[in-house]
Amino acid sequence: MIPRYSRPEMVAVWEPQARFRIWFEIEAHATDALAELGVVPKEAARRVWELGGPAQFDVARIDEIERVTKHDVIAFLTHLAEIVGPEARFVHQGMTSSDVLDTCFAVQLVRAADILIADVDQLLKAIERRAFEHKLTPTIGRSHGIHAEPVTFGLKLAEAYAEFTRARQRLVFARHEVATCAISGAVGTFANIDPRVEEHVAEKMGLAVEPVSTQVIPRDRHAMFFAVLGVVASSVERLAIEVRHLQRTEVLEAEEYFSPGQKGSSAMPHKRNPVLTENLTGLARMVRAYAMPAMENVALWHERDISHSSVERMIGPDATVTLDFALARLTGVIDKLVVYPERMAMNMDRLGGLVHSQRILLALTQAGVSREESYRLVQRNAMKVWDSYQRDGSASVDFLEELLADPDVRAALSEAEIREKFDLGYHLKHVDTIFRRVFGRA
Amino acid sequence: MIPRYSRPEMVAVWEPQARFRIWFEIEAHATDALAELGVVPKEAARRVWELGGPAQFDVARIDEIERVTKHDVIAFLTHLAEIVGPEARFVHQGMTSSDVLDTCFAVQLVRAADILIADVDQLLKAIERRAFEHKLTPTIGRSHGIHAEPVTFGLKLAEAYAEFTRARQRLVFARHEVATCAISGAVGTFANIDPRVEEHVAEKMGLAVEPVSTQVIPRDRHAMFFAVLGVVASSVERLAIEVRHLQRTEVLEAEEYFSPGQKGSSAMPHKRNPVLTENLTGLARMVRAYAMPAMENVALWHERDISHSSVERMIGPDATVTLDFALARLTGVIDKLVVYPERMAMNMDRLGGLVHSQRILLALTQAGVSREESYRLVQRNAMKVWDSYQRDGSASVDFLEELLADPDVRAALSEAEIREKFDLGYHLKHVDTIFRRVFGRA
Amino acid sequence: MIPRYSRPEMVAVWEPQARFRIWFEIEAHATDALAELGVVPKEAARRVWELGGPAQFDVARIDEIERVTKHDVIAFLTHLAEIVGPEARFVHQGMTSSDVLDTCFAVQLVRAADILIADVDQLLKAIERRAFEHKLTPTIGRSHGIHAEPVTFGLKLAEAYAEFTRARQRLVFARHEVATCAISGAVGTFANIDPRVEEHVAEKMGLAVEPVSTQVIPRDRHAMFFAVLGVVASSVERLAIEVRHLQRTEVLEAEEYFSPGQKGSSAMPHKRNPVLTENLTGLARMVRAYAMPAMENVALWHERDISHSSVERMIGPDATVTLDFALARLTGVIDKLVVYPERMAMNMDRLGGLVHSQRILLALTQAGVSREESYRLVQRNAMKVWDSYQRDGSASVDFLEELLADPDVRAALSEAEIREKFDLGYHLKHVDTIFRRVFGRA
Amino acid sequence: MIPRYSRPEMVAVWEPQARFRIWFEIEAHATDALAELGVVPKEAARRVWELGGPAQFDVARIDEIERVTKHDVIAFLTHLAEIVGPEARFVHQGMTSSDVLDTCFAVQLVRAADILIADVDQLLKAIERRAFEHKLTPTIGRSHGIHAEPVTFGLKLAEAYAEFTRARQRLVFARHEVATCAISGAVGTFANIDPRVEEHVAEKMGLAVEPVSTQVIPRDRHAMFFAVLGVVASSVERLAIEVRHLQRTEVLEAEEYFSPGQKGSSAMPHKRNPVLTENLTGLARMVRAYAMPAMENVALWHERDISHSSVERMIGPDATVTLDFALARLTGVIDKLVVYPERMAMNMDRLGGLVHSQRILLALTQAGVSREESYRLVQRNAMKVWDSYQRDGSASVDFLEELLADPDVRAALSEAEIREKFDLGYHLKHVDTIFRRVFGRA
Repeated sequence: MIPRYSRPEMVAVWEPQARFRIWFEIEAHATDALAELGVVPKEAARRVWELGGPAQFDVARIDEIERVTKHDVIAFLTHLAEIVGPEARFVHQGMTSSDVLDTCFAVQLVRAADILIADVDQLLKAIERRAFEHKLTPTIGRSHGIHAEPVTFGLKLAEAYAEFTRARQRLVFARHEVATCAISGAVGTFANIDPRVEEHVAEKMGLAVEPVSTQVIPRDRHAMFFAVLGVVASSVERLAIEVRHLQRTEVLEAEEYFSPGQKGSSAMPHKRNPVLTENLTGLARMVRAYAMPAMENVALWHERDISHSSVERMIGPDATVTLDFALARLTGVIDKLVVYPERMAMNMDRLGGLVHSQRILLALTQAGVSREESYRLVQRNAMKVWDSYQRDGSASVDFLEELLADPDVRAALSEAEIREKFDLGYHLKHVDTIFRRVFGRA
Repeated sequence: MIPRYSRPEMVAVWEPQARFRIWFEIEAHATDALAELGVVPKEAARRVWELGGPAQFDVARIDEIERVTKHDVIAFLTHLAEIVGPEARFVHQGMTSSDVLDTCFAVQLVRAADILIADVDQLLKAIERRAFEHKLTPTIGRSHGIHAEPVTFGLKLAEAYAEFTRARQRLVFARHEVATCAISGAVGTFANIDPRVEEHVAEKMGLAVEPVSTQVIPRDRHAMFFAVLGVVASSVERLAIEVRHLQRTEVLEAEEYFSPGQKGSSAMPHKRNPVLTENLTGLARMVRAYAMPAMENVALWHERDISHSSVERMIGPDATVTLDFALARLTGVIDKLVVYPERMAMNMDRLGGLVHSQRILLALTQAGVSREESYRLVQRNAMKVWDSYQRDGSASVDFLEELLADPDVRAALSEAEIREKFDLGYHLKHVDTIFRRVFGRA
Repeated sequence: MIPRYSRPEMVAVWEPQARFRIWFEIEAHATDALAELGVVPKEAARRVWELGGPAQFDVARIDEIERVTKHDVIAFLTHLAEIVGPEARFVHQGMTSSDVLDTCFAVQLVRAADILIADVDQLLKAIERRAFEHKLTPTIGRSHGIHAEPVTFGLKLAEAYAEFTRARQRLVFARHEVATCAISGAVGTFANIDPRVEEHVAEKMGLAVEPVSTQVIPRDRHAMFFAVLGVVASSVERLAIEVRHLQRTEVLEAEEYFSPGQKGSSAMPHKRNPVLTENLTGLARMVRAYAMPAMENVALWHERDISHSSVERMIGPDATVTLDFALARLTGVIDKLVVYPERMAMNMDRLGGLVHSQRILLALTQAGVSREESYRLVQRNAMKVWDSYQRDGSASVDFLEELLADPDVRAALSEAEIREKFDLGYHLKHVDTIFRRVFGRA
Repeated sequence: MIPRYSRPEMVAVWEPQARFRIWFEIEAHATDALAELGVVPKEAARRVWELGGPAQFDVARIDEIERVTKHDVIAFLTHLAEIVGPEARFVHQGMTSSDVLDTCFAVQLVRAADILIADVDQLLKAIERRAFEHKLTPTIGRSHGIHAEPVTFGLKLAEAYAEFTRARQRLVFARHEVATCAISGAVGTFANIDPRVEEHVAEKMGLAVEPVSTQVIPRDRHAMFFAVLGVVASSVERLAIEVRHLQRTEVLEAEEYFSPGQKGSSAMPHKRNPVLTENLTGLARMVRAYAMPAMENVALWHERDISHSSVERMIGPDATVTLDFALARLTGVIDKLVVYPERMAMNMDRLGGLVHSQRILLALTQAGVSREESYRLVQRNAMKVWDSYQRDGSASVDFLEELLADPDVRAALSEAEIREKFDLGYHLKHVDTIFRRVFGRA
């Protein structure tokens, strides 16, 4: 997580002030429950909220105390006592630090997930708008980087939309995985604290009760969370790479928006680099990498060790802040993407109609020409077109005209039949079907 | 995937014969749909089932054809034509190889997921049985590898049960992610094939329709699948490492079952190594590693490239076969685990009752002794016990007796009050609560 | 490791027969040393070589024994005794299984490294030949996928050559890392075996002595080995992706060789897919992934645990066989790569000379035109050219002609001066310097 | 990289001020070379050093300019012009941003490597001191976590010493890999800059010349660098896990130093947690993870894309700062490690001498007893000892005494012969040999 690739809302989730506020809420709600159970005075619980509720916690002061105590939760509680006074001694009764730390981490991950889900919603909105805008903008479909058959630019975006719909579902799944509260004491037995305290805090913090904890919330939950982030980042990479390909000089079917004042554009007008999507490619690599240590964190020793902690202090912010930034950047890229439909048409035509060769081949066989002969006929015309493409960079020989001029082809197919095989509409006839599947409308 | 770490049922999913059978079913169902739509003769569809249905496909023959055609699906279709005869020309009409390959891969992954889910069910059964057997077997809970407070061995297993319940849900989620069928042609536009063919094949193969494909099924689905496997493997590792710890010479609270004839046990009776769980640790590392290339596979170029294929040919079998083997091995380990309750009790007692020091401290403060004085009182007795443990390897000084003999302690607490603080029952009082949460019964 | 992506020489390194042969040699050399030290009879050592030396070990028989003993080395020794007779009891004296297993693994990794180094040598040879062939074949250099300034195709290959020269050095480094022999007994203390046995075996097997082992050879060595393989695979991916880019329909500056009979080329002549290099991209992902479990293998518990074993049984063959295959495939790709110099020239010209805009800008400022005015002059001509490229897919307006016709430009620069700025030679003047650095000759 | 796990010296390498200073030096040296070649006035080069040399660069000001120009190097050059005045226009002539950025990154990685190497040297010193201190401190060697045969604590540390000697060599190798300078212009052809500028800057910055660059320095170098860091981190993890095991309550052979004032020790004297080494385990996971994106960075498109940049902005500091911190923390742990030789002896004895059973078995067979009978004799005595260990947690039956009292054993071996088999010296006789191999002295 570095400022250059960070957005304030997600950064705020991980700031000390936010963390201490969550700690406070967990402790205060737990004190409420303890008061309700008669373990501590109700007056104490009231005072905690009254004085602690409106307080700004002094991060520097807490750090100062921690340097002495070498224990972050004790430092916080000491500072809380400075604010709340002697009643603070009723706070944290029967609890262990992990009760606070792990439940807080759950709250932070839930908030992070909510932001990421909202990010994906924004992205989906941008993709949908552009998809409908280009629903019927023809462009060449490519497999292996080689021209295959026509699609539309809207279809490309529909695919992205479907992919990010899945990304959204995965984030909801990931959020659900980590949204649990554990207030179960030193080894998870509730020896010193009633399970009803956990239930109360869970409800108040918007979490489920962790059915069984071992002082810590089990780390398979977090591993799943970060693995999902890695998969979502991989989808970001996919769309980013599509844009990078489209912006290549030779392809130039779309470009990242380039603001008029942006440096470097004037004297070298061709040098508009897809730097945002290249950047997204790198960020995706990072988010993906964080999944590995998260998985290694699962196998804590016995009831718990603390090896997971340094990892989470790093990847908690790093993975969520980076993915948030990446999703927002991608939304901007798609939202403002400069699309060149004429260039798409031009690129498709560059092969002189060769992309229709399959349909001609099929038509010939259906017209009763043997498979071998059909092949031969298509091939001898196709090769002329291809050679001209190879030579000139754009076919100077037209496949349709060659076919129309080939007496053997014409013996099997009429001019109208041949021309019909070059109809783009043939390829686009099910775009509506697909759009309805993806967007629920066409 | 190597024979040593493979089980036949999962291996069978990936065998050529199984793959060709799935290909056949996809092609035959597609031909049915094409016949229904009037694109091919119904008689042809009937013949395909009639002759192809009972056939054993000749893997060697298909390989031989592939060596010439350098194309696996064409090789299969050629062989199918040898079986079905001229009607075979109606098979595969308007389809592209990926329609068959990707839908087949989906079927294989679904089958693999079903086996893995069944594996987890077996494991859950074993864990549950042992958990109830040891529901109230006291053992020391450890944090950081250091004695903390008492738990029960059943609680440890309840934690594992809850974790593998989550593993099961994740596998169900993963199965759902990949269970789609795509029969959409060269670039996913259905140009040459009616979407109803896809719907028919999907239904027959037990899959959902892929809303939008690009010749290939999008690889974010598979990335999610293999990431889940990595997380499940990490849970395997966690339980395996717990067993390895328990079997350490100094701990010896449980041991992998060691069959009487097993080599090496006789002259060195102490040398019973936890080789199965060590092996599981290594296997988990492998399954986890396969998640990375699966994520890198997502960003295929444009409508598709073929870079994912070599990865999937490897990790498809490798990840599922290895995890299947690991889950089954772990089930065996848990099922037969030799548990030593006496040793657990002995280890817990080894510290001479020090694990109860916290409760004494609390009792003193609650009895009105100042926090500092309470600390001092507990400490001066605790240190004597600890020193004896440190010196002798097992405490020769007893914490309870020291406390009873300490007049300052006795001034604050009666003998009964002190003795009560050493009651194990205090720690186990909520075991039933936890068991009900985890197993739905106690 | 699957047959499709395997070559026999590397597969042979990992076959049981090869492994047993290495085990035999280690045992026989150790027996020699023991005999020399007077620990066992010299006659025994002689017999072991005499009878075991020419023997083919019966893999099925050894497997059969292992099923009973559940121990691979004991099974082998039992089988050896069947061949050598009673003298076999002198074999393996004072040794532990790991002495044999780890030293054997070292030998296998060394052999694998030797093959990989030879692979890189072949690759270097192919790259060098093609680099000199195309030393002065101009092509456009691209940054961000966008045309930048001219380079030569030979320079691209020189870069690849330099990169694989480094790959070679890394492999030599990796080979050195793992080339050690340990014959040090149960916990590495030589309690039951003289260190001179280790020295003798090391020398005979072409290995260094492991300075200190703990029953096992330390796994940081192997982690380094597999990490290097991951880096080398990443270089394979880089060159593969370059080819994939060059083969794109719109670029088409080079193509993988496509044999005349290869399926799919005839009726769709444009559909020659870079399947070999796409495949290499996937294989690189796999080899890279294997580095992770190798690194996790380092932290074995105490003097050793066996968790590394399952990982190595898999990645030992998988990583080396896959990388060997990938290097050989890449060599074939480069060796036969079909290069289109005319197309390279055409692509470079497509932008109507815009790639020279920087030089004109510099010339104007050097001629005393203010920076702002120079910019304005270049820009107004460049934009016309770019607009025509954007519109037509190939610039119909020529930058040179526009500049020559611009009176303000001509006021500052003569025709000869302007023309000189479009000279390709300017960009190629240091090719020889670079070639000499890389190849030692130009 | 977070403050909690950072040390100032390494952080300083990555601070903006340090980066701008390096940029300045590269630019100023390049200007010198340009002046020497007569491309720019010598006076200009002199002024750059004169005014820029002593300057503190104003980071906030540069950031401000970058917000407008959206280009970091241009922002720096603009700020430099504010300091140097009009002569600044001669700076950066013919260079491209990557010339500065990549050469600067090389300098930073070299500095980072130097710090890491110095860290390892400190660690080696600490290990060596403790190794000689405990050269002959007997402790039990464990395989699979199970008692095997005696070693010494010094031997354990000798193993660590040898491992970190290799770590050092790897860091030297990694440093060498990245220590290159590229000043080769927009696509690496030196079109606008003489190669002698590169040579001059390289020499002045302590780098080698990059033989061939493509605007950027090839990223396989950096991949190798970060992969090495991952391997070194894995060695940190190994030693950390050893300490964690030794500190377990049941083992307690060593403990991290616990300062008297450190919280938590008093009332629960047993609760001294190995938090430093647990932390190191987590940090190792992070450093390892960074190797993956570094490897994915290798395959930049064509002459370069910018996807590597975001990755390097993160892992550059993150990996080096974290590893530096980890190495220093580990040095502290080893330096102050509290070692309990008595406890080591006690643990070894706990099995009542069973660790010597192998030697007795061997002695019996050597004395002419059949292998089966020897087994039976050892086993019947060993089982009694083991049962008592199993039952009591520490063997109450002594293996030596049982053997001495067994008439069948005594028929084959004299008392002296039996006693000799329990001699620890037997296991330690080659400690000096090993020390000489590792430390060059014993």
